[in-house]
Amino acid sequence: MRVGILGGGQLGRMLALAGLPLGHTFTFLDPSEKACAAQVGKLLVSPFTTGEALRELISRSDVLTAEFENVPATVAEEVLKERPFYPGTKAFYLGQNRLREKEFFQTLKIDTPKFCAVNTRDELLQAAQTLGFPFVLKTTELGYDGKGQWILRSEKEVSTFEVQAPSIAEEFISFDRELSIIGVRTKNGEVRFYPLVQNIHREGILIQSTAPAPNPPTALAEDYLTRMMTALSYVGVCTLELFQSGERLLANEFAPRVHNSGHWTIEGAVCSQFENHIRAVTGMPLGSTELVEHSVMLNILGTVPPLESILSERGVHLHLYGKSESPKRKIGHVTVVRSDAEGAALEVLKHLNS
Amino acid sequence: MRVGILGGGQLGRMLALAGLPLGHTFTFLDPSEKACAAQVGKLLVSPFTTGEALRELISRSDVLTAEFENVPATVAEEVLKERPFYPGTKAFYLGQNRLREKEFFQTLKIDTPKFCAVNTRDELLQAAQTLGFPFVLKTTELGYDGKGQWILRSEKEVSTFEVQAPSIAEEFISFDRELSIIGVRTKNGEVRFYPLVQNIHREGILIQSTAPAPNPPTALAEDYLTRMMTALSYVGVCTLELFQSGERLLANEFAPRVHNSGHWTIEGAVCSQFENHIRAVTGMPLGSTELVEHSVMLNILGTVPPLESILSERGVHLHLYGKSESPKRKIGHVTVVRSDAEGAALEVLKHLNS
Repeated sequence: MRVGILGGGQLGRMLALAGLPLGHTFTFLDPSEKACAAQVGKLLVSPFTTGEALRELISRSDVLTAEFENVPATVAEEVLKERPFYPGTKAFYLGQNRLREKEFFQTLKIDTPKFCAVNTRDELLQAAQTLGFPFVLKTTELGYDGKGQWILRSEKEVSTFEVQAPSIAEEFISFDRELSIIGVRTKNGEVRFYPLVQNIHREGILIQSTAPAPNPPTALAEDYLTRMMTALSYVGVCTLELFQSGERLLANEFAPRVHNSGHWTIEGAVCSQFENHIRAVTGMPLGSTELVEHSVMLNILGTVPPLESILSERGVHLHLYGKSESPKRKIGHVTVVRSDAEGAALEVLKHLNS
Repeated sequence: MRVGILGGGQLGRMLALAGLPLGHTFTFLDPSEKACAAQVGKLLVSPFTTGEALRELISRSDVLTAEFENVPATVAEEVLKERPFYPGTKAFYLGQNRLREKEFFQTLKIDTPKFCAVNTRDELLQAAQTLGFPFVLKTTELGYDGKGQWILRSEKEVSTFEVQAPSIAEEFISFDRELSIIGVRTKNGEVRFYPLVQNIHREGILIQSTAPAPNPPTALAEDYLTRMMTALSYVGVCTLELFQSGERLLANEFAPRVHNSGHWTIEGAVCSQFENHIRAVTGMPLGSTELVEHSVMLNILGTVPPLESILSERGVHLHLYGKSESPKRKIGHVTVVRSDAEGAALEVLKHLNS
């Protein structure tokens, strides 16, 4: 089939690398002429809201999907008039707004940090009273990799803080660890889940994912994600980020797409998140989500590290995205797949930071 | 690096699919505008012998390689004036001619079927006397997938046979099984080998490869291929096809390139033949050639089979090449990777032949 993808970054690129061997072809719509997916498909360069480029994407595609959640509702509607568009309008609508997302979790009785909407200074003061210090303030839209997020620790910080409306204030969770669960659902409602992943962030940016997470709270995590995907009549891969705090498992946010914490599945699972997303949106049967071997994924941020020593490590797989170097930018990742993946990852980390 | 590939078929396509995540980009030169590698790189459409297109390929590439052995000597010379070109002129020169290839085996004291050159009827009669019936006659160049090969069984068949010069007559080996060994060598002379593969051909076309081959004569096969790669100062992946007959291990032919009997390595080995070829020619360290799990590769010939049931089998990986359907044409392959791969492959075979 001809698959159209909104966005032409590394996720689109890896979707195509997984989907080409299934016999599909790819067209991407991206505002940047440097979009790295251009190497594996046809790139249309245009803002997403431009009707003409969007119509060309639609005409070149049998089915459409997106590599990001910030799909404007008007765009989703225009696509859906003519073609299937997965995972679906409602998933994009909820996934792009932290407040709607949290309310969605609440509706489904999925545990989350306490939260309240903050649009004014009065609401910020009210939030401080309700949540106590410290608490977290986030813009409701467009934040990613830690951008648009602040921790407020005192009355004094609150008093000088300039609120960007619309925002959401959230209870600060001193979690034991961060987890994510990645699932995939077909049009017919079949669902499969990858093993739970344990994640480490630094300054809001994902640094490391380990699969499988030790002692994973699998049943509850799968239950959460099943409720979500069912409620959304979801088609494709969906990711739920979680905090574990003692016995509690709290939903932090979800991504209606393939996710950085699932990159390890390319080599570490029988069928990767990228292939399964493409299988789901093109109506193919799902592939196995079983683990092949213990895996640790490390992001390459900013600059390409010396590759010689990294590639010499046994079971290390390199993925560069063809993006230019820029501080803290995700330009690639490395996955270590072997029984002692965590030890080996420490070796690789040395080279990544050198 | 910018990698230039002579040929834009499925081998070039799979080389690029493996090499893009390493940060490389690809340009292909192919006479057909339908060359399927066009989906993963820049395609230059031109006969190989046209100077202009070749010069454009060279200018677009930091290093060059080929997906086939029939690289004209003049072309190899022109490339080598300006860029590294692997695996190397001598490998192409020998690999494209069955007589030179067999003489090369002889020089290296690698056991082969008896053979003699046949250019005339007299030489054909002489060959029949020397080799006895049946014997095999092959054109020395350009035969593949069983084309340009005949089995001659009697004086009568010989008397009416029209010799295509130049040809080579070979002893008919009633082998126990067909094997192949795939190795890779770096510029510095480091060599690694994949586990031996057992192959089944039908009408000269590879149907099935099983890895690892049971009870493999590994030491001797690796010794043969080491001698060859060393003699050629080989860089990249090299494949040697073998007949096993009792205790004898006879070299049938070699391919100075990635090979159909190594397609299983994409999922079945830690680092695939495609990635290791690209690593070698771009000067990166080699990846592990170790087996991940038992694998059976089945070629998809002629038409795309019903995919639903094939993709539903656990551990089955589909690779379609984006080529149009045509009788007996290799348009894709399926690899079954699981501990009971051979049993599962039988199930898949049913669908392939339905």
